[in-house]
Amino acid sequence: MNKQFSVAIVGATGLVGKTMLAVLHARRFPVSQLVLFAESDGVADTPFGTLPVLALSQANVYRNPCDLALFAVSSEISIAYAQIFATMGTVVIDNSSAWRMDDSVPLVIPEVNPASAFLHNGIVANPNCTTIQILTAVAPLYRKFGIDRMIVSTYQSVSGAGAMGLCELESGIDGFFEKPIKNNLLPKIDSYIDGGYTGEELKIINETHKILSTQIRVSATCVRVPITRCHGASVNLRLRASATLGEVSQALREAPSVTVGDIPTPYDCVGGDGVTVGRLRRDESEANCFNMWIVADNLRKGAATNAVQIAELLIR
Amino acid sequence: MNKQFSVAIVGATGLVGKTMLAVLHARRFPVSQLVLFAESDGVADTPFGTLPVLALSQANVYRNPCDLALFAVSSEISIAYAQIFATMGTVVIDNSSAWRMDDSVPLVIPEVNPASAFLHNGIVANPNCTTIQILTAVAPLYRKFGIDRMIVSTYQSVSGAGAMGLCELESGIDGFFEKPIKNNLLPKIDSYIDGGYTGEELKIINETHKILSTQIRVSATCVRVPITRCHGASVNLRLRASATLGEVSQALREAPSVTVGDIPTPYDCVGGDGVTVGRLRRDESEANCFNMWIVADNLRKGAATNAVQIAELLIR
Repeated sequence: MNKQFSVAIVGATGLVGKTMLAVLHARRFPVSQLVLFAESDGVADTPFGTLPVLALSQANVYRNPCDLALFAVSSEISIAYAQIFATMGTVVIDNSSAWRMDDSVPLVIPEVNPASAFLHNGIVANPNCTTIQILTAVAPLYRKFGIDRMIVSTYQSVSGAGAMGLCELESGIDGFFEKPIKNNLLPKIDSYIDGGYTGEELKIINETHKILSTQIRVSATCVRVPITRCHGASVNLRLRASATLGEVSQALREAPSVTVGDIPTPYDCVGGDGVTVGRLRRDESEANCFNMWIVADNLRKGAATNAVQIAELLIR
Repeated sequence: MNKQFSVAIVGATGLVGKTMLAVLHARRFPVSQLVLFAESDGVADTPFGTLPVLALSQANVYRNPCDLALFAVSSEISIAYAQIFATMGTVVIDNSSAWRMDDSVPLVIPEVNPASAFLHNGIVANPNCTTIQILTAVAPLYRKFGIDRMIVSTYQSVSGAGAMGLCELESGIDGFFEKPIKNNLLPKIDSYIDGGYTGEELKIINETHKILSTQIRVSATCVRVPITRCHGASVNLRLRASATLGEVSQALREAPSVTVGDIPTPYDCVGGDGVTVGRLRRDESEANCFNMWIVADNLRKGAATNAVQIAELLIR
């Protein structure tokens, strides 16, 4: 009999937590027991049946030891609880930004830097949604041709801001986002941090450096758009080596979890576990430059799927 | 008494035609007589009162000579009719793409290249909506610092595709766009032309070259987004001269029709006649590079307002 694992979902009733349950079930993760944590006690209908939900508290964590814990909570809650799980021997896979830039915490995209996952000290960080989808496509090009510079403009759905973001778009009742999002574009995601850049933009830059272990030159502009699910990214790459369009396309086609399409849209990609690249073409304005459009489901590959893939890697 | 002018609006019942009437009225253009043309006879409620609408035909054009004709019709209709008006001595200001790249037709943004408007042979072309809003902001930087390269990603509203585009977004009934636009992003505007680029993308490149009279290096990715009105553009510029952030900001603030804001959105800019630039910051990934976000109302500055400004220039 194959080994099975007890798995905690911390933040089990949120958008990402629910998607983690769906992905664990769809990918037949070998679960012996599920422990669901949320803000308060209750029950949840899941693909594994109706399950009790426990209020997240130190006592409840101690009473329910697990092999793995998938965290889909805010940075604040992750900071308060991740090490409590870790000291019990549970391996935490955390979707918040709390631990991503911590030198003792690996930041992992299983298709890109799987080996680093095993260097954990109890916590493994899931990258930012846009970083995941961009690097899943771009890392194979980095390996094959080198990347000199990357300029990114994102088109990010409201579900990236959680259930409240989705609710604001669907209801049209403003107040959660800084400006209305229904019938609008919001060219600022997260707070300003440094040099006029937002947290979201710096995540793409800094997480790319950490995951690829290189100070590749990156600039990013992140924009929230009024769609419910999936993020798009318009990416301009300058390669180090010269490459034909066919060679770049071929490298993308051979990349794990990457599909090359023509005009992939969120509508086509919702519910998928991979990343789709379209509109691939030379940028004739400069040597060795290419434009592409990258779409993925931000709740799946951009969050839950990547976390479950890390879990799959760790139990192999 | 100041001179007044007879003005024909060709395509008076479409989104841009109606906006031309609103802008003529709002800017107190000295109109002696308005002649409205559309597909068929009728009446139209306009800011100038209820007016007859004439079916566009050669006979109706001959019967109603005008000083100026503002065209808000397809390229096909423009090709069929613009020279009929021009041979009668009417100056045509055309919003289609039919004449833009014709060497004998000036392509004009009044804030950028006003002198060229007077070199017409009866037809003046209004640039593409995104070209207008980007160059209104960027041309002053080109003049002051030089531009070495410009990389653009657009976020374009459905009204750029006309009333049918608006109708599809508002009704949710698909079929007009190549893929659904409601709750979706469509990374292709116009047909493919060359090298994997769409007509819309090549317009930005080619029209920029013509308007600035320079082969400045440009690359563009154009994406339709599910908003009704205003286009956004994420623009990365590499200047030829070094400049501080303050100098670039100052040059934008001094530019005619440009407002510098922080996070301008379509919601803030709808109905406006200018262009708003926000999120201005250094791109630290390369020397002399800056990122900015440019928003304008595509039906006003991107179409009707620019056409009326050309008319104002010609009658001065």
